[in-house]
Amino acid sequence: MFELSNDPHRRYNPLLGEWVLVSPHRAKRPWQGQNEAEDTSSNQPYDETCYLCPGNMRINGEQNEEYHTTYVFANDFAALKPNTPFGEQHDGLFTSQSVQGESHVICFSPDHSKSMAQLSENEIVAVINTWQDLLEKLSVKYPWVQIFENKGAVMGCSNPHPHGQVWAQSQVPSLALRTGKQLLQYYAKEQRALLLDYAEQELARDERVVCTNKDWVVVVPYWAAWPFETLLLPRFPVQHLHNLTVQQSNSLAAILSQITIKYDNLFNTSFPYSMGWHGQVFDGEEHPEWTLHGHFYPPLLRSATVKKFMVGYEMLGEPQRDITPEQAAALLKNQSSTHYRMARE
Amino acid sequence: MFELSNDPHRRYNPLLGEWVLVSPHRAKRPWQGQNEAEDTSSNQPYDETCYLCPGNMRINGEQNEEYHTTYVFANDFAALKPNTPFGEQHDGLFTSQSVQGESHVICFSPDHSKSMAQLSENEIVAVINTWQDLLEKLSVKYPWVQIFENKGAVMGCSNPHPHGQVWAQSQVPSLALRTGKQLLQYYAKEQRALLLDYAEQELARDERVVCTNKDWVVVVPYWAAWPFETLLLPRFPVQHLHNLTVQQSNSLAAILSQITIKYDNLFNTSFPYSMGWHGQVFDGEEHPEWTLHGHFYPPLLRSATVKKFMVGYEMLGEPQRDITPEQAAALLKNQSSTHYRMARE
Ligand SMILES: O=P(O)(O)O[C@H]1O[C@H](CO)[C@@H](O)[C@H](O)[C@H]1O
Ligand SMILES: O=P(O)(O)O[C@H]1O[C@H](CO)[C@@H](O)[C@H](O)[C@H]1O
Repeated sequence: MFELSNDPHRRYNPLLGEWVLVSPHRAKRPWQGQNEAEDTSSNQPYDETCYLCPGNMRINGEQNEEYHTTYVFANDFAALKPNTPFGEQHDGLFTSQSVQGESHVICFSPDHSKSMAQLSENEIVAVINTWQDLLEKLSVKYPWVQIFENKGAVMGCSNPHPHGQVWAQSQVPSLALRTGKQLLQYYAKEQRALLLDYAEQELARDERVVCTNKDWVVVVPYWAAWPFETLLLPRFPVQHLHNLTVQQSNSLAAILSQITIKYDNLFNTSFPYSMGWHGQVFDGEEHPEWTLHGHFYPPLLRSATVKKFMVGYEMLGEPQRDITPEQAAALLKNQSSTHYRMARE
Repeated sequence: MFELSNDPHRRYNPLLGEWVLVSPHRAKRPWQGQNEAEDTSSNQPYDETCYLCPGNMRINGEQNEEYHTTYVFANDFAALKPNTPFGEQHDGLFTSQSVQGESHVICFSPDHSKSMAQLSENEIVAVINTWQDLLEKLSVKYPWVQIFENKGAVMGCSNPHPHGQVWAQSQVPSLALRTGKQLLQYYAKEQRALLLDYAEQELARDERVVCTNKDWVVVVPYWAAWPFETLLLPRFPVQHLHNLTVQQSNSLAAILSQITIKYDNLFNTSFPYSMGWHGQVFDGEEHPEWTLHGHFYPPLLRSATVKKFMVGYEMLGEPQRDITPEQAAALLKNQSSTHYRMARE
């Protein structure tokens, strides 16, 4: 029989219905390629050139409030706009449809120098509450509300000031649609939510669990494509962020603090990633098949400056990884839960 | 009605059965993010530290031949290996299968300083013939043979010496499987190959055609996700590269030369990309639904140093682009077909 820790194999991702190629033997190849810039996060709590700091002017001439907790404004260069004329065009192989939507920016904190890993649990609760407020508002108008954060220059983030985005769209985007179909198929067969079953199975096996508390668990999923990809799962049925109790929001803040600190500690750097939340579709129906979950997609592979490239084979064939999810989970799990910058002081 | 040149919309990609978000109004946002390193391509035809140059030693101690045209060797750090024990594991949500395969490296030329854009048509024919030989050999053993090239440091390419790779795999990889299903569905309905119909429709409309000759056409596909993505299509039925006549291989070399020169001329740089070929599955059946085609996925957006980031929304929702495929095609089409370095001399 082949060995997961040693032999080339594929793992099935039940959320997307596709496979990931795993090449454990390949982890030792030497690196001669591009290095990323070192951590460019800031030490100043206020930067007068930052368009996200309190009181500063944005490019479109608007001035930010002197905010003290989180701060939300409409994206000045929104990819989605609410008032696009409706319509569809279909001619031969040329099919298009107009899109309505909104994009908002959320500053997580007035402090320019802090990422989520350096915010207190109370400060993270404020971020969660802001996500919840936007969800309440946007879920009435749009079937899909995508909350996400691009963190770090290597993830295209143009500003180290801690912030995320929310894009609401009049159609369920492709990846969410695929996940929804997969979840529904499982639910139809098993009468249980796939991700609740998965959380239970991961907790029982305890091979890929990074951290956990009473309400939540973070794993490197069995089918992770990015080297240190994680999945944040609830240990109770819940469809989206605004359905959490106060207590569940508090315990979510605690586990978000833990996982982001472990990430920073892994390579002693402000760890870059894209993260975001997937939850139910807002189409007026019940969606017991959907479980709220958070995806972290970090690009780093071996150090603060060497990332994994999702290129040739990944773009044309399927994602490929070298170190196994089990190795990645062990590395993350063993990180201290005190941030390396705090420990130093 | 909404306007494709102005309003946010989605376009349907019939090869993957998913949508791309287009935000034409967004092209003007300022860029404050990460810049890529300038072109690092070399001017020396021989580099003694390069593990791909003729006669040099590779990391595993093997010595390259003193080759004069193309040169093929087994990847020293292959992601796929031929002799992995067979097997499948399935337990709850944990599904895996072992993979057999091979990875080969192809040096396109002994000249360290030349990319495809700077090779003569005859030299490109040699590359095509090498692809064809490998296909002949590998298609007997494996259902999928992925020919690709990662070019440029920004695409994870660790060496400017012109080279590509071929990975053959015992299962059809996820993206190829999806494309195959889409093509088959169209064929079942129309009794024609989707991509031959598409090539005809693009030639008739002439809005996204970048270059063409008697046998081939390059378009920025209607559903392109990357800013300057192109699709290289035959104007005659053919399932894979090794089924080309000598004459069709020659005209393919001519159009590969054209498109890569136009790419380099766009930003006066050695244009980075991942490119690769999709053709029929080798399962012993006839595949009239499959048409050989080449994908170019280049990351650059505005200049030699500013790329498009496929991050947050793209990783969680769906791909998003700013400039329209029609604008991109016009920009590429207008480039000279003489390489900027030749023109300078
Ligand atoms: O095989 P190489 O060139 O070492 O590696 C490169 O191409 C592979 C196939 O596209 C990718 O999986 C790697 O992430 C990339 O660094
Ligand atoms: O909206 P931003 O931060 O300007 O832009 C960034 O995030 C977007 C959404 O993930 C991406 O489409 C852009 O490529 C990226 O640069």
